[in-house]
Amino acid sequence: MNYSTLSKEEQNLAFAEIKKKYQALQREKLSLDISRGKPSSEQLDLSLPLLDMLSSNYKNPKGAGDYRNYGYLDGIPEAKALFAELLEVSSDMVFVAGNSSLHLIYDVISDAYCFGIQGNVPWSKTKVKFLCPVPGYDRHFTILDKFGIEMIAIPSSPIGPDMDLVEQLVQDPEVKGIICVPRFGNPDGGIYSDETVERLANMKVGASDFRIYWDNAYFIHEFYPDSPKLKNIFDACKTAGNIDRVIEFASTSKITFPGAGVAVIVMGENNMKEFKKNAFVRTISYNKLNQYAHVLFLKDSETVKSIMAKHAEMLKPRFDTLEKALEESFSDCDYVDWTIPKGGYFVSLNVMQGTAKRVVELCKNAGLILTPAGATYPLGIDDLDRNIRLAPSCTVQEELQIACNVLVCAIEYAILEKLTTEE
Amino acid sequence: MNYSTLSKEEQNLAFAEIKKKYQALQREKLSLDISRGKPSSEQLDLSLPLLDMLSSNYKNPKGAGDYRNYGYLDGIPEAKALFAELLEVSSDMVFVAGNSSLHLIYDVISDAYCFGIQGNVPWSKTKVKFLCPVPGYDRHFTILDKFGIEMIAIPSSPIGPDMDLVEQLVQDPEVKGIICVPRFGNPDGGIYSDETVERLANMKVGASDFRIYWDNAYFIHEFYPDSPKLKNIFDACKTAGNIDRVIEFASTSKITFPGAGVAVIVMGENNMKEFKKNAFVRTISYNKLNQYAHVLFLKDSETVKSIMAKHAEMLKPRFDTLEKALEESFSDCDYVDWTIPKGGYFVSLNVMQGTAKRVVELCKNAGLILTPAGATYPLGIDDLDRNIRLAPSCTVQEELQIACNVLVCAIEYAILEKLTTEE
Repeated sequence: MNYSTLSKEEQNLAFAEIKKKYQALQREKLSLDISRGKPSSEQLDLSLPLLDMLSSNYKNPKGAGDYRNYGYLDGIPEAKALFAELLEVSSDMVFVAGNSSLHLIYDVISDAYCFGIQGNVPWSKTKVKFLCPVPGYDRHFTILDKFGIEMIAIPSSPIGPDMDLVEQLVQDPEVKGIICVPRFGNPDGGIYSDETVERLANMKVGASDFRIYWDNAYFIHEFYPDSPKLKNIFDACKTAGNIDRVIEFASTSKITFPGAGVAVIVMGENNMKEFKKNAFVRTISYNKLNQYAHVLFLKDSETVKSIMAKHAEMLKPRFDTLEKALEESFSDCDYVDWTIPKGGYFVSLNVMQGTAKRVVELCKNAGLILTPAGATYPLGIDDLDRNIRLAPSCTVQEELQIACNVLVCAIEYAILEKLTTEE
Repeated sequence: MNYSTLSKEEQNLAFAEIKKKYQALQREKLSLDISRGKPSSEQLDLSLPLLDMLSSNYKNPKGAGDYRNYGYLDGIPEAKALFAELLEVSSDMVFVAGNSSLHLIYDVISDAYCFGIQGNVPWSKTKVKFLCPVPGYDRHFTILDKFGIEMIAIPSSPIGPDMDLVEQLVQDPEVKGIICVPRFGNPDGGIYSDETVERLANMKVGASDFRIYWDNAYFIHEFYPDSPKLKNIFDACKTAGNIDRVIEFASTSKITFPGAGVAVIVMGENNMKEFKKNAFVRTISYNKLNQYAHVLFLKDSETVKSIMAKHAEMLKPRFDTLEKALEESFSDCDYVDWTIPKGGYFVSLNVMQGTAKRVVELCKNAGLILTPAGATYPLGIDDLDRNIRLAPSCTVQEELQIACNVLVCAIEYAILEKLTTEE
């Protein structure tokens, strides 16, 4: 409905109507949650054969050391080769670690804070700013905030951040990084354009320890086989003579099991040398048996793509349900818009300005948990109080339909509440 | 042989003899390594059934969430309960993490450095000293050195560090910690006495962020069922009103698979609250499927003890071989002594003063890798150039016998070389 064209009286009537509807939903005592990007139980079942890959008949691969013992700090060669193939880089650029790419992001930020990057002043001893395309991933902001890094929100669209602004701000030597999810971004589901990637690779930066933290969490997580590709930023940086500008992160958290997958960090030669030196201090080796089980299960790029196609079969209908619900209610409403991702785990929803917090509260009071309003902004501050991240992946279809009813009702409620109480 | 009673001429003759013996060993082109405390391949075979614990028939335990998905940051309840039983603490004191207790040690030191402990000044902004019982574990020293922490070597015997000295030094508010392996210590294989534990728990410290970093890496790794127990330091600290003084670390790295095991950190309530807050920033969750497989395999304290008895059957003969070789050659030699551990992975060997580096070099040149001389001291500096850590666990018996021949020959060589060239 296009609420703005309604008369005050019509608004009051509509609000009374929506209140009734909301109260009816409340009486259903729902308990639903579309707050986090978690795979559904049926998606996790796809990876159950992973648990058969190793057994008490275990043998080390021919010519290799004993993967049950210490060693191979940077990962087993088979895992390095697999991720190199998947991410289209050379395997000496790949360090295969533990179960969490977020932990790897934490580690490199922490290393920069404690020890500095390539001989530069440690960030604990100098002012540090980061560019944060918004809406963005709350857990990135949590890490940066923990280290006292000033976060500068950069307006972003599905094809990438406002590059004019980025190019201007990176000239400041206090700006030491930009952190982003370039493909099927969290939360807008976009894919950075070739131009964005090229400009990131070629821009002139003020700090020699400036890095692009390229959280490629959904690098292969597409709903359609012909989803647009992301330009290889290492290739672009290499051409620009900036191979050490980028540090890439990825994992199998949403290919196999979240929390029991394998995470990787990808870097050029100088960064890798420094990362290995620091990693050696932290640990003796990562879980190579889990790496090896993953190699045996995921095999190669073709196999991974076929697995991801099965995930897509389960994810796509959920995103369709959500999109349909929003489309049916708000296609002609100027106050509400949302992204239509071609992969990943999230939809970025903009509700009427000044009502995002209220929508989340209304949903909560009707038994539907959403990601907190503001979570997609540094320090949780969305000045316009507008953006909400939606994650429909983990809810079964029937419940998701109900969740959508609650969400739509809450959005309408908040709009009409605001319109009817405004002067 | 008691070299000190030999005449100069006899020494020269003996040196000529030992040189021939050494050259003969060199001609054998050996390639042996007793440098790191790694389980042998046959020990690792003991844990192969662990790999059968989970399969594609996987079901979540009744009443639990989905262990394949995110969640349970501090570990699954079953794993917390198992480690609580093993370490004789309550399960709310246990945080079950990833595969590496060294990484957990790194994390808490890093947290203290970056953010400070319980509101105290972050260590990045103040002078920090640590007490390091020596000989000690090289990887501890590597972490402390990385964070610029001044390490004060504390002479230690198998019953613990010189507590008079410790009690005196901890009054200095710059002394923020002591890091130690209290049972089957690395490298001396000792067990801290009840008195040592009591004094550590009760001593008056100058810094409110002073902590005991209790690396209980070999807490259950005994060669004999009646091996002496280690007094529970949490009980002692609780009685002393100092429950937050201790942070304990342990893992299954030498119960199941090094690198593919499960690590834990154990703390009182205040420390745990802070650790969880920091851990939340680092990661979403650890590998719960590996935790669950471990619970199913290790079951309970009795099962773990029976597994450790099998490890002991394989380890004990190796330690016997090493001890016998040293005993046969050096029982009446004032220059050489060594520890006789009742568990763990190491023997601490003292050779003639000023010859440890030379012994390691001689061994290397005859194809036997030892832990570098000095590694058991902060910054790798053993002022007396005397101590060498021996790790016989990973070598098969026949090879270990040969390794012992090389070692004994090198020790004798170095003694005679020194005696014959001295004035």
